[in-house]
Amino acid sequence: MSHHELALILSNAIEQQQFNTALIQVKGLRPVDLADIMSHIEPALAWRLLERLPHRATVYAYLDADIQVQLAREFPRANLARLVSEMPSDERADLYKCLDQEQRDALLPALAQAKREDIRKLAAYEEGTAGALMSSDYATLEASMNVSEALAALRAEAPDAETIYHAYVIDAERKLLGVVSLRALILALPEQQMHSLMVSPPIHCRVTDDQEDVAKAIARYDLIAIPIINENNVLVGIVTHDDAMDVASDEATDDFHKSGGVSTMVGNLKDVSIGLLYRKRVFWLVLLVFGNLFSGAGIAHFEELIAANIVLVFFLPLLVDSGGNAGSQSATLMVRALATGEVVMRDWFSLLGREALVALCLGGTMAVAISAVGYMRGDEVVALVLAMSMMCVVLIGCVIGMSLPFVLNRLGFDPASASAPLITSVCDASGVLIYLFIASRFLALG
Amino acid sequence: MSHHELALILSNAIEQQQFNTALIQVKGLRPVDLADIMSHIEPALAWRLLERLPHRATVYAYLDADIQVQLAREFPRANLARLVSEMPSDERADLYKCLDQEQRDALLPALAQAKREDIRKLAAYEEGTAGALMSSDYATLEASMNVSEALAALRAEAPDAETIYHAYVIDAERKLLGVVSLRALILALPEQQMHSLMVSPPIHCRVTDDQEDVAKAIARYDLIAIPIINENNVLVGIVTHDDAMDVASDEATDDFHKSGGVSTMVGNLKDVSIGLLYRKRVFWLVLLVFGNLFSGAGIAHFEELIAANIVLVFFLPLLVDSGGNAGSQSATLMVRALATGEVVMRDWFSLLGREALVALCLGGTMAVAISAVGYMRGDEVVALVLAMSMMCVVLIGCVIGMSLPFVLNRLGFDPASASAPLITSVCDASGVLIYLFIASRFLALG
Repeated sequence: MSHHELALILSNAIEQQQFNTALIQVKGLRPVDLADIMSHIEPALAWRLLERLPHRATVYAYLDADIQVQLAREFPRANLARLVSEMPSDERADLYKCLDQEQRDALLPALAQAKREDIRKLAAYEEGTAGALMSSDYATLEASMNVSEALAALRAEAPDAETIYHAYVIDAERKLLGVVSLRALILALPEQQMHSLMVSPPIHCRVTDDQEDVAKAIARYDLIAIPIINENNVLVGIVTHDDAMDVASDEATDDFHKSGGVSTMVGNLKDVSIGLLYRKRVFWLVLLVFGNLFSGAGIAHFEELIAANIVLVFFLPLLVDSGGNAGSQSATLMVRALATGEVVMRDWFSLLGREALVALCLGGTMAVAISAVGYMRGDEVVALVLAMSMMCVVLIGCVIGMSLPFVLNRLGFDPASASAPLITSVCDASGVLIYLFIASRFLALG
Repeated sequence: MSHHELALILSNAIEQQQFNTALIQVKGLRPVDLADIMSHIEPALAWRLLERLPHRATVYAYLDADIQVQLAREFPRANLARLVSEMPSDERADLYKCLDQEQRDALLPALAQAKREDIRKLAAYEEGTAGALMSSDYATLEASMNVSEALAALRAEAPDAETIYHAYVIDAERKLLGVVSLRALILALPEQQMHSLMVSPPIHCRVTDDQEDVAKAIARYDLIAIPIINENNVLVGIVTHDDAMDVASDEATDDFHKSGGVSTMVGNLKDVSIGLLYRKRVFWLVLLVFGNLFSGAGIAHFEELIAANIVLVFFLPLLVDSGGNAGSQSATLMVRALATGEVVMRDWFSLLGREALVALCLGGTMAVAISAVGYMRGDEVVALVLAMSMMCVVLIGCVIGMSLPFVLNRLGFDPASASAPLITSVCDASGVLIYLFIASRFLALG
């Protein structure tokens, strides 16, 4: 049965107050699937089933932010406070950020003091940092504990901890000393103490680190979770592998869009508004129009030449595109390599030389192809002009395309902004000028 | 100290047989970092330090395939066999696939029967499938075991298992019954039995599933590992979260390259040869040259019109590019949405309508911009021609760009092959024809 169909059945059951029937229907479903189904049910109905679910807080946490906010409006204040208290701390803080002031004012007083402070603390970190990503639901141990004490402590902490597979050893000031895996605990002797079992110093990140770097650290060291410390080396949270995977995917989408000339966009493509799509795309397109004033001017400068040799016009789009396409390829390779860390800034010069060689090979191949076509349409002079132009255009396109990401990076922009449209507009003008300049040297004016 | 510097110091120590000095130098380093350093040391030297490292098999497994193969040549057969036996089963199978026949023939007989069969089994699965990705080092339990028995079993299996945080409950035929988390075991009462503790049926994949789907399942359900079963529902392996993260990253890189008009490429961009780069890029570029024969023909058809109105040429590159750029944006959005599963095939029609609306808004804006420029260079007729052409070109570009990924998908190709260069070449011809056709209706022949 599809999620849509099940949502329909559940809606009816809820309307008829048959909550047990509904609960039987969803028995055994995973929270993420339940969330998917819930998002197809009217909020006014959904909340009444949601709060009867065994893992209601987990299910609620899986819902999209906008649906969470809609549901929050439906819940009676007390029930909402209970639900929110049960949520994972990182999801709870994210929800809080999405609520309007009125909703916040209604929610906060209904929460326990500790939860209130936790929300305020987590919500205060800047978006995109480790602090904004981390959870405060982690398990801690003391260095002096032995294995039996540690296991007992973990049993006590398990209900509230995102993971107990990594536990963090801290001192009296909550400074991070080391990490102990549950695997090590299970294999150790009962009387062994944590300071002999723990890995120290542990791999960690700082609250101010970019969330992308946190994800990279988790991926590089194959971690289940990574501890996050503040400027005083005090343990303040953890980021788990599943959150890291989401971050990596979002960052990839972001780079993907930028390289295609679409500005950063959040939300499911099916749901985003036409207005948003328009705003995210219009910038580069209009920029190109004005960037093109230069190529237009270039063409105007060679007006008589063109008038006398209309054959030149046949190949204008091709030569202009070739530079842009070769450049986009170079930029694509560099942008991704910079994003994955395969390549760093200081590699630019060494890569530039190799890129130039590749460009000459590519340009040469294309020169052969285009001059063959040119000879058919025009004569051997045209063929020669086309071949030379193609070589130069491709070479310049590649050099621009591979350098732009580095330049943008150096200037503090995201290298992924070296988008196909940007490179096209940059290569257009140069392509036109090169082509017509070379032509003017070899072809007579009418 | 940088990894390069450390590698230099270690090389000297090894040459002078000072292995203890070397081992002290690398004490406390993580395996992945050690592997990074090892890859900067001459294989002839590196292997002698490597086999003295505490986690030598883990470090070796982190090395790039080509370096693994080089080192394999240096190791005495017996030492290599010992090292390979200690490797994680999935990494071991991957290494085996990279060895040449001679190396394989040398290695296999030196391995224990069980390892030999394990290698043969894992290496037999097709690349890109769950089978080729999975590890056979997983922990299993019996449904009748109680918690104390289960914990004892896990202690025994731990040294060889990739993870003991998820253990898989199987029957006498090794059919997968359920999954038990170590967390649940720690919290349960000693006499509780597995069939009451296990989650059943567990989320799982089949050996023949695409590795991308395995990664998606792990991400969706926030799993530490996912069990892989064969056609008889027999448990044959697991895929862990860290491998899933690598797969997701590789697939993203792959799509990224394809969208930029670069064919699938493996290996670090810094290391790949110029020849490979050339081969991976030349296809789309040359294709474009011949695709452009059409736009050239189109221009030839309108030769007199152009000769009589050279002003048209000024805007030719711009109009041609605009369609391609708008189209690339649409394709970029669709390709990524299809890859992340945000959008599925049946969404095509509903998205097409919305895309057309966005295209009209974008085209309208750009029409205003270009007609302003056109009015300056030409007259109001030229401005009108440019505005109308821009609207049509952008509209068609967007429709092609957003539809192409779906078409390719339907035809069994990777939607990411709807690359910027491909769309550019498709939009070129149409753009030229639309522009010159509209112009021919409004502008007089000389």
